[in-house]
Amino acid sequence: MKRAQLASGVSIRRSLGEANADQLAAVKEVIGKVRAEGDDALLHYTQKWDGVELDDLHVSPEEMAAAVDRFDAQLLEDLAEAADNIRTYHQLQELQGFRHTNPNGSYMGQRVTPIRSAGLYVPGGTAAYPSSVLMNVIPAQVAGVKRIVLVSPPGKDGKLSDGVLAAAHILGIDEIYKVGGAQAIAALAYGTETIAPVDKITGPGNVFVALAKREVFGDVAIDMIAGPSEIAVIADDTAFADEVAADMLSQAEHDPMASAVLLTTSEELADKVAAEVVRQLQSLPRQSIAARSIADHGSIFIGETMDELINAANELAPEHLEIMAEGAESIADRIDNAGAIFIGRYSSEPVGDYFAGTNHVLPTNSTARFSSALSVYDFLKRTSIIHYSEQAWQENEAKIARLARLEGLEGHARAVESRSWKKEN
Amino acid sequence: MKRAQLASGVSIRRSLGEANADQLAAVKEVIGKVRAEGDDALLHYTQKWDGVELDDLHVSPEEMAAAVDRFDAQLLEDLAEAADNIRTYHQLQELQGFRHTNPNGSYMGQRVTPIRSAGLYVPGGTAAYPSSVLMNVIPAQVAGVKRIVLVSPPGKDGKLSDGVLAAAHILGIDEIYKVGGAQAIAALAYGTETIAPVDKITGPGNVFVALAKREVFGDVAIDMIAGPSEIAVIADDTAFADEVAADMLSQAEHDPMASAVLLTTSEELADKVAAEVVRQLQSLPRQSIAARSIADHGSIFIGETMDELINAANELAPEHLEIMAEGAESIADRIDNAGAIFIGRYSSEPVGDYFAGTNHVLPTNSTARFSSALSVYDFLKRTSIIHYSEQAWQENEAKIARLARLEGLEGHARAVESRSWKKEN
Repeated sequence: MKRAQLASGVSIRRSLGEANADQLAAVKEVIGKVRAEGDDALLHYTQKWDGVELDDLHVSPEEMAAAVDRFDAQLLEDLAEAADNIRTYHQLQELQGFRHTNPNGSYMGQRVTPIRSAGLYVPGGTAAYPSSVLMNVIPAQVAGVKRIVLVSPPGKDGKLSDGVLAAAHILGIDEIYKVGGAQAIAALAYGTETIAPVDKITGPGNVFVALAKREVFGDVAIDMIAGPSEIAVIADDTAFADEVAADMLSQAEHDPMASAVLLTTSEELADKVAAEVVRQLQSLPRQSIAARSIADHGSIFIGETMDELINAANELAPEHLEIMAEGAESIADRIDNAGAIFIGRYSSEPVGDYFAGTNHVLPTNSTARFSSALSVYDFLKRTSIIHYSEQAWQENEAKIARLARLEGLEGHARAVESRSWKKEN
Repeated sequence: MKRAQLASGVSIRRSLGEANADQLAAVKEVIGKVRAEGDDALLHYTQKWDGVELDDLHVSPEEMAAAVDRFDAQLLEDLAEAADNIRTYHQLQELQGFRHTNPNGSYMGQRVTPIRSAGLYVPGGTAAYPSSVLMNVIPAQVAGVKRIVLVSPPGKDGKLSDGVLAAAHILGIDEIYKVGGAQAIAALAYGTETIAPVDKITGPGNVFVALAKREVFGDVAIDMIAGPSEIAVIADDTAFADEVAADMLSQAEHDPMASAVLLTTSEELADKVAAEVVRQLQSLPRQSIAARSIADHGSIFIGETMDELINAANELAPEHLEIMAEGAESIADRIDNAGAIFIGRYSSEPVGDYFAGTNHVLPTNSTARFSSALSVYDFLKRTSIIHYSEQAWQENEAKIARLARLEGLEGHARAVESRSWKKEN
C-alpha cells in the first residue's frame, strides 16, 4: 500500500486506461449482427459465448417458480426487507412538475413523466448479484416505468441464477430474457423479434457490455459507465484500525482495479491499518483480487489537519466515503464531492451496498464531482410547456422578433410576426 | 416535402449519420496537444483556425465595457427581460434534499449541492447567439454554481461578438476566454496555465466541438450532444396554414439537416401548408438552407384521427411540438415524448427560443423519449448519506452479512461483522 503525505496542489486522483480497439471492433460487429439478424444473432452468440443452445430466450413462469422454490427462505426474507428499505428511500426522490401563470394569460410549465420502458442488464456467473436487481429495478418502479425488462446471460445449464430470479420475483418483474453480453445490449437498444426495444438501459457488466452501452448511447439512454469500486475513509485516532481495514478490503475484494484510500491525521492509525490490512488479507477468500487492488491502488495519506483531509476527499470525489472521526457529521457537511457518505463507526460500507435503502449504483473515478447515485430521477423526463395567450403575444412579439433578427434568424422573426399578418388581412 | 399517410407499425423516426473518422482523429490530436502544451497549444490553434494571433486569451474588463457600450440599448433591454423570464422559470426547478430517520437511530438522506464549476461553449461567427448564453448560464446560476466560465472563438479582429458579451454582462459573467473549437473543450476539461478546468461543459458547437465533448465525457460532465433542430406541428382544420408554414420554416432555416413535420387530420390544411411553405421560402434570407431542409427532411403526415397524430408525435418524440388544434391542452396532456410543447396559435416556437422562460436547449433526434431540456437539475448533484446507529447495526448486521455471502463477497460480510469482533475482544 502506497503511503504519502498530503500536499496541496498535488492531485491524488488516478486516471484509468482507454478501451481496447479490438474489443470495440468486436462489440460493433455484434451490434450490427443483432440489428440485421435479430433473435438468430442472439441465439448464435449465446451458443458461442455462453456455451448453451437455447430454443427460447424467455424465462418461463415455471422456471421462475422453481428458482424461487429452491431459493433459501431466510435469504428471500432478507432480500424482501432490503427491497422495502430501498423503496422507502427512493419514494422520497420526488421531481415536481409546475406551472407558472402570468397575468396576461400565458403560462409556462414543466410536466414530469416516467420513461416508457427500461432494461436492466444483470451479469452472469459469480457477478449475478441479486442486490443489483433491487438497486436498478426499484428506482424505475418508483418512477412509474410501465415496462421493465431484465436480461442476463444463462449458465451452461441454460438457466439464470436462483438469486437473480428470486429478486425479480420479489419485485414482480416477469419479462426476463436469457441473453447477455453486447448482444443483449443491442437487443435492448434496437429490438429483435422477441425483445421489444427499451428507452433506457442500466446495470453493470463486463468490458463488452460497457462498450456496447457506450455504442448505443444516444439511440437509447444508458446509466453511467461504472468504473472499479472505490472507498475512501477519513479517520482520526478515535477509529478502530481493524474496522477501517475491513471496510477497505470490502471494496478491494471487488476488483484488482478497485481502490481503497485512507485519509488520516493519525500516524499511529496509519501504521495499524496497514498492518491490519495485511493480517486480514491472509484469510480472505478473494485474497488474490484484494491483494492486487491494495498493492496497486491502495493508499494511505497523512494530513496535518482535518481540513487537509476534507480537501483531499473533495479532490478525490470518491464513490464511497466513510467518516470515522470525532465530529463525523460536521465533517460530512463539508464534503461536496462524494457518491455516498457513511457517517460513523457503525455505517460500514456494505450497509449501503445491501440494506440501508440508498442506491449502491454510484459515480466512480472522481465523477462524483458532477454525477450522482442512480435514482428515481433517472427514470423520469420533463417536458416543457409553453402557452402564449393573444395578449402575451401582443405584448412581446416585437421583442422576440428583434432578438431573432439580432441572431440573423429572419424566419424566426417572421414566424412570430405571422400571427399579425393574419390580423392585417 | 414528403407526404404520407400515417400507418401503424411504420416508424416515422429518422436516423442520423456517424461521425467522420478523420474529424475524430483531428479532435484527438488537438486534445492531446492542449493537455501536453497548455496555453501554447491554444494560441497555436487560434492562429491556425481563427486566423488571429492573440497575446492574451482573456476578455478584459475594458473590452467587455466597450462591447456593451456599442450594443443597441433596446436589444440590451430585450435581452435583460428575456433573462428575467428565464430566471423566473428556472427558479421553479427545485431538487429537494431529504433525511429519513428510523426509530433505531439510523438515518438515510440525500444532500443536494451545486457542481463547483461549469464552462459554456459559445460558437463564433453567425452562430454566436446571445440567447445561448442566457439559456446555458442561467440554470447554472440558479443552481448555485460558483464559477461559470465562457469560451468562444474570436473573430479575425481578435474580438468576441458584442451580443455575446452583452448577454454575459447582463448575467454578471466575467471569466471569458477567446478560444474555440476542440481546443477550447480540451482546455475546459483538463485546464491550462490560464484556464482552470471545470466540472461540466455545456453549449452548442460544430462537429469538432461535439466530437471533443464526446471525447472528454467522463473526465468532465457534458450536456447532451444536440442534433439538428426539429419541429413537429399537430394541426387540424382550425389552424392557419401560413402560421404553420412560418413555424416550420423557422426551424428549417437553422440547418439543412433540420426537420419540420406536419401531422394533420386535414387534407385541405396539408395542401395549403405545402403551398405556403413554397411561397414563404421565396423571400426567406436563409432560403437555401431552409429549402434543403424542407426538401430532405420536411414531411406532412395525414392521419384519420387525432389519436393517430398523438401516437405519431409520441413515436417521433420531437424536440419542439406545436399544437394548433381544437382541444390543444387536452391533446398536450396525452403527449409523453416531446422536448417542449407549444400550445395554441400564439405559441409560435421562437417564443420559446428567446423569451417565454423555458430552456431552448432541448433533446433532439427522438431522445425526448428519455431526455429533457437543460435545467437547474443539470448543475446539481446529489450525495447519499448513510448513518447507522449501534442499534441499527445490531438489528441488521446478520442480514447484511448473509446477503453479502450470497453474492460471494466474504470481505463485505466481515466488514459489517468487524464491529462485533470489537465487542468480543
